[in-house]
Amino acid sequence: MDMKKRIAIDMDEVMADTGVRLMDLCNEFCNEEEPLTVTTLRGKRLAEIRPAFAEAIHTHLADTQFFRDLPVIEDSQRVIRKLHRHYDIFIATAAMEVPASFTAKYEWLEEHFPFLAKKNYVFCGDKSIIRADYLIDDNPRQLRSFQGEGLLYDAPHNDIETEFPRMNSWEDVERYFFE
Amino acid sequence: MDMKKRIAIDMDEVMADTGVRLMDLCNEFCNEEEPLTVTTLRGKRLAEIRPAFAEAIHTHLADTQFFRDLPVIEDSQRVIRKLHRHYDIFIATAAMEVPASFTAKYEWLEEHFPFLAKKNYVFCGDKSIIRADYLIDDNPRQLRSFQGEGLLYDAPHNDIETEFPRMNSWEDVERYFFE
Repeated sequence: MDMKKRIAIDMDEVMADTGVRLMDLCNEFCNEEEPLTVTTLRGKRLAEIRPAFAEAIHTHLADTQFFRDLPVIEDSQRVIRKLHRHYDIFIATAAMEVPASFTAKYEWLEEHFPFLAKKNYVFCGDKSIIRADYLIDDNPRQLRSFQGEGLLYDAPHNDIETEFPRMNSWEDVERYFFE
Repeated sequence: MDMKKRIAIDMDEVMADTGVRLMDLCNEFCNEEEPLTVTTLRGKRLAEIRPAFAEAIHTHLADTQFFRDLPVIEDSQRVIRKLHRHYDIFIATAAMEVPASFTAKYEWLEEHFPFLAKKNYVFCGDKSIIRADYLIDDNPRQLRSFQGEGLLYDAPHNDIETEFPRMNSWEDVERYFFE
């Protein structure tokens, strides 16, 4: 019987920088004099402040390659590798919303997190199905339906949430579990 | 708060007839005078009694179309539809072992079980991650790592298992939950 505690980790906007990639694509698309930055996006949703780009978001997400080339979020590799030595790590991503993403997400994890076991990847929809002690996720709705301890990974769209401990960076996660 | 109990259901050899399809392919491949039947396969593993076919099994499973055309196991649609009215149904399949299967499995579920929500599909590896009250699975190893109540769906390879209630058919499952 494995006595390690178990941490489930969301991919998009937690490990993979989906948000910044979409913002860059939006800036290209809208071609405005003052492009959006992480700062101007704070507290807002891309689809709301750039409605002209809303439909294009779905087109990008439905592209089988979109998730393959996403940048890795800073420090996530180092901290998850460290967590991996003390906890059972599962990757829990809401891939069912974008079935075109399955292979790209699988290959992205293989490339950037080769130390994680593939049997610990979980492609799901509703994270209430995840049995783990912790879930690190940027989506408050998923944290609410999860039955363990939820940690909110900071993202522009979740700025006003106060219900869960907020992790502003992977260094915050490191401090949370090791200090 | 949803108070329905939750049943997780495995796909291969529980909903989709992977076993019979592989046996048919094996019979074609081996072309013996006495082809295998469900009865002669009882208590055995295909790869062990037809070692010449063992490698071909992996080739078939790696074919992106293999899982798309599998026959539906008898009565599974009727009984799962009935369960769906009284329980939260999640589909939990060990798809991470065969990543080529993702899209085919997704489309197969969409076609044959359109009444199930896609957000309740779970593609995983190790089913200890599944938080549910029941798991119906043909694999005793998965039932052992699952933390709810395990029900063993009968298959030739699990003939000697006695640790879990055995479901010989979907009619057995129906009786288990409704009688």
